[in-house]
Amino acid sequence: MTHPVLLLLTHDADGRVVSVDERDPREPQLSVADLAATRGDGIFESVGVVGGRAQALEPHLTRFAKSARMLDLPSPDLDAWRGAILRGVEIAADTETELLVKVILTRGVEGTGVPTGWVHVFASGSYRAARDEGIRVVTLDRGYRSDVAETSPWLLQGAKTLSYAVNLASLREAARRGADDVIFVSTDGIVLEGPNSTVIALIDGVYVTTPPDLGVLEGTTQGAFFAHVESQGASTAYRPMTLAELQSASAVWLASSGRQIAPVITLDGVVMAQDPAVTPVELAALLAR
Amino acid sequence: MTHPVLLLLTHDADGRVVSVDERDPREPQLSVADLAATRGDGIFESVGVVGGRAQALEPHLTRFAKSARMLDLPSPDLDAWRGAILRGVEIAADTETELLVKVILTRGVEGTGVPTGWVHVFASGSYRAARDEGIRVVTLDRGYRSDVAETSPWLLQGAKTLSYAVNLASLREAARRGADDVIFVSTDGIVLEGPNSTVIALIDGVYVTTPPDLGVLEGTTQGAFFAHVESQGASTAYRPMTLAELQSASAVWLASSGRQIAPVITLDGVVMAQDPAVTPVELAALLAR
Repeated sequence: MTHPVLLLLTHDADGRVVSVDERDPREPQLSVADLAATRGDGIFESVGVVGGRAQALEPHLTRFAKSARMLDLPSPDLDAWRGAILRGVEIAADTETELLVKVILTRGVEGTGVPTGWVHVFASGSYRAARDEGIRVVTLDRGYRSDVAETSPWLLQGAKTLSYAVNLASLREAARRGADDVIFVSTDGIVLEGPNSTVIALIDGVYVTTPPDLGVLEGTTQGAFFAHVESQGASTAYRPMTLAELQSASAVWLASSGRQIAPVITLDGVVMAQDPAVTPVELAALLAR
Repeated sequence: MTHPVLLLLTHDADGRVVSVDERDPREPQLSVADLAATRGDGIFESVGVVGGRAQALEPHLTRFAKSARMLDLPSPDLDAWRGAILRGVEIAADTETELLVKVILTRGVEGTGVPTGWVHVFASGSYRAARDEGIRVVTLDRGYRSDVAETSPWLLQGAKTLSYAVNLASLREAARRGADDVIFVSTDGIVLEGPNSTVIALIDGVYVTTPPDLGVLEGTTQGAFFAHVESQGASTAYRPMTLAELQSASAVWLASSGRQIAPVITLDGVVMAQDPAVTPVELAALLAR
């Protein structure tokens, strides 16, 4: 069994990391006045670890810094964060189990102006069924137009914030509908993303995903998927997709750091086309990173 | 100086409160794996305390229970919560200072299924300038239609969740525009609410606020305001308001538990009509509750 590891990154008032200290994750470590706990006011990344290798570490750090900018948080010292993540994985010292690293920066205890940061490494759940057998997905209205990231940046679409109550509520709604996961659709009918995943659809022989400028997160796993299929000669595109295009795609996957890719087997209860030649090859390539 | 008070409400797996214990709020009390801190997955209320009296306690508890239902959290034991709030105020033993009580219920440490709860009592900031001199307000797009609470309940509009990153980002946007606060407007042009307040407008001699079925929170302070002006013979109404109606109102206030009411002196930079006869009388009535 994996030994969970917690590293606290202590900041100064200028947002610099002044120390990185191992703590017991079973003991309380956060103030009840931390704005993470009272307001979901912070950002995070979930980094997958396979065979002891932290995957897509640089894309995760780049996205972490982007989220910090969007929330007017101090720019994270990426060298310190990278070091803490790698040190956490090294302390966990488990190359057999797949791990997740939660990387969290908050606005800190209210009134102090001093951010709180931590890196939490633990064994991920099993993704075998989702990867091998696929997932049942429902589409849900995200309530926003696809252009709100441009018109209304205070809605924080495209930032990976700690305010995920809507993401979790949408997953409970999916469960009520007998499904495993969600694809959000904008009010103008554009496919957005999952609550914690990126949509990839194979349409007319091209692997397509939603462009990040529509307020979705830039997928770190989707990025690795695209790089691999491109290296095999396939075409990829970042472009808006309609729901109708998704429904008639040759195959659809949800990509995320822990689960890697899971093929969508039903969409709103309708059986989806599959590409059984692609999923195992791409999954193997993603796990081998 | 007020001595801050923290009471932890320990729950069992069925969501029942099994003990209420005083803890040191200066010491860490929360796990880094609590879903409040990692996902903003929980609910809260902020109860104002004036002269040692917890204000609008029952409306706060009613709203707390509604938020729990909307988030599929265990139904809070309102007797236990009421007792904890009153005990926290009693321990603080400060009838001179205005206090705030943060009342928080979270989904708990991930994987345990056991909620976390606490009551945190502390001195509120000074609201003198906002109450006496008024506030400059900007309107911001909330990104949602006014009917999403009905069409898309997983967006949690109308629940008071811990996922408040957008509310705080909108206040930072207001500050960038030289303003103190925000009134959100729906994409179909309906006045919604503030990031942590309720809008009251005096229109054609009637005090008007947005109906809660449009996905805004039922205002506890606005409720007390309406009850008082009704007792003085004035008319009140819950009805949708357009932005144009707000702009031409005889007076506009933002109502909230700590600040009570603050008159809006400019809206998007335009000087607003005032009703100087109303504000001090209603403020005094609210403080005297």
